[in-house]
Amino acid sequence: MPDSALFVQQGVDQPPVVNPKASSFYKRNQAPVHAAQTYIDGIRSGNLSLLSQAITLIESTRADHQRIARKVLEACLPLSGNSIRVGITGVPGSGKSTFIEAFGSYLTKEGHRLAVLAIDPSSERSKGSILGDKTRMETLSGDPHAFIRPSPNSGSLGGVARKTRESVILCEAAGYDVVFIETVGVGQSEIAVHSMTDFFLLLMLSGAGDELQGIKRGIMEMADLIVITKADGSNVEKASLAQALYQNALHLFPPSASGWTPQALTASAIEHRGLEEVLQKIRDYFSLTKANGYMQHKRREQARYWMQQTIDETLRDRFFKHPDMERLLPAYEQKVLEGKLDSFAAASALIQQFDAS
Amino acid sequence: MPDSALFVQQGVDQPPVVNPKASSFYKRNQAPVHAAQTYIDGIRSGNLSLLSQAITLIESTRADHQRIARKVLEACLPLSGNSIRVGITGVPGSGKSTFIEAFGSYLTKEGHRLAVLAIDPSSERSKGSILGDKTRMETLSGDPHAFIRPSPNSGSLGGVARKTRESVILCEAAGYDVVFIETVGVGQSEIAVHSMTDFFLLLMLSGAGDELQGIKRGIMEMADLIVITKADGSNVEKASLAQALYQNALHLFPPSASGWTPQALTASAIEHRGLEEVLQKIRDYFSLTKANGYMQHKRREQARYWMQQTIDETLRDRFFKHPDMERLLPAYEQKVLEGKLDSFAAASALIQQFDAS
Repeated sequence: MPDSALFVQQGVDQPPVVNPKASSFYKRNQAPVHAAQTYIDGIRSGNLSLLSQAITLIESTRADHQRIARKVLEACLPLSGNSIRVGITGVPGSGKSTFIEAFGSYLTKEGHRLAVLAIDPSSERSKGSILGDKTRMETLSGDPHAFIRPSPNSGSLGGVARKTRESVILCEAAGYDVVFIETVGVGQSEIAVHSMTDFFLLLMLSGAGDELQGIKRGIMEMADLIVITKADGSNVEKASLAQALYQNALHLFPPSASGWTPQALTASAIEHRGLEEVLQKIRDYFSLTKANGYMQHKRREQARYWMQQTIDETLRDRFFKHPDMERLLPAYEQKVLEGKLDSFAAASALIQQFDAS
Repeated sequence: MPDSALFVQQGVDQPPVVNPKASSFYKRNQAPVHAAQTYIDGIRSGNLSLLSQAITLIESTRADHQRIARKVLEACLPLSGNSIRVGITGVPGSGKSTFIEAFGSYLTKEGHRLAVLAIDPSSERSKGSILGDKTRMETLSGDPHAFIRPSPNSGSLGGVARKTRESVILCEAAGYDVVFIETVGVGQSEIAVHSMTDFFLLLMLSGAGDELQGIKRGIMEMADLIVITKADGSNVEKASLAQALYQNALHLFPPSASGWTPQALTASAIEHRGLEEVLQKIRDYFSLTKANGYMQHKRREQARYWMQQTIDETLRDRFFKHPDMERLLPAYEQKVLEGKLDSFAAASALIQQFDAS
């Protein structure tokens, strides 16, 4: 980031002196950076604009932005943890946006405050493919009790996941009691979402015998609830058949440590049918897992997981991005590729060099 | 290993002076440790007993054994790489041993020399569940052109995988031109096997509409060939139906970079039917991927993968097993679990401490 040389940062709580044209942050937000306390107060009082700006600081790679973001996060952490965190994914064509729009609106009518976040590591490439365009959820984006935020668009899944997980903390501190984390069906991001939510909702389509197709294998096993969408019009019967099929398939998985038996339902976003049942299942899951201690256990495991993941990623980055390693790696790789050195011996040699550097 | 204090190791090429009662190696092998050159010569001349002992050295965690193993491995590496490496997994009940027995015997009759290895990280617990008992493959274990070796039984999947991958090198140097790596259906070990083989064979059962069940999702996507086993007697028709079903399902996956279209076949181990076709498919795959360069590309990627995996694992171990980290980690975890510190801040703080130590 050559831009950062342009900035003089005096103190963590002081807004940095900036050249408004130099930063993509300003291009995106057109708003000045405030002191951390401004964001903290804003978030606590439910100021949407300040919440949104604070998330932008979390997403920023600039050191001065990150310093403020850390302060904000630290202050919000004690206020977080009180939402129902729901991961939502779906097969292509399952109408994820339409379902989230309908189900989200139902939730706010029921008195909930809903934040919709997203994890899409590919969003930089396919700009706006996921939630980038709020017009995908017109009703919900105009709903004063809903907050919609597109996926941070940055390289690695680890980075995107970290930013989203931190955004959840800010949203919870701002009083949102239900958080959706939407994801695209690319496998790895589902695992990330599953690792930061309480409940995993999988949207599926009814089809002609090919119900299990189109979804990455491994994702169905993570589902706490499968919802067959578009159960309306001439599709109602097919959806019921698919529901029975999934219900059977879910029984074949080994029982979950949560004590919860995953279930399959049908719903129609356009006819607003089945939404009540979906909410009821989520509430049932919460009652069960709060009572039996699984929810607390799972959140603890998730916290541990992300701590370890972050350490792993840091250690890896430091090794593979070390100038000496970047210089030596190709030669060792070459030896390995030519069969002159085995992979494990090459790894040992590189680690010795890393230690000596 | 307190035992190692009992041993005096003079030189790498000299057999260590040992107390034969103190080492589990000796309990298992009842044979002395030779100089590296003895193993190298033995392997090159196809001496089964010395090959077997050398693999035991690879599997050993003792430093003196490892020193000899490294020497042997280094000498064998230029002689390796000339086999067809086939990963084989199957759903429970698919008769994996019976299939390997029948298919393996067919291969040796066709003039091949076959090594059967295994990866089963759980083998320590479920002793002998996989290939531990050679009586599972009576014909093959009596076959002079076949070499059967159970899974190394040691903790981590990474460790087991490393040992198996190194054993492949020794087997190839000993002249085995087909190597099977068998695995149990636990998901993670399939990924490891897939990362060290050229061709992935998935054994499935025909069943009553529940064909896709019982197998970990994600594994079907790795298959280059699906074989519906037990296609005999009253089962022939069902097996053909299952074959058609899988053939359809396989078409739905995105095309592989290999240019190969995964296929489904039926086979009967007891009637020795379909084995010729399975071998033909494997040969077709080889012709194709050798011609289009994919095989070389894949092996290179695998070599790189294992180098990076080994580095990752080493970095992780050094961090998490560092005495300071072992001491500090619980306190930081506690703060994270109590919501006093977020996972990412805790990770940063621990890494700072690690660097300062």
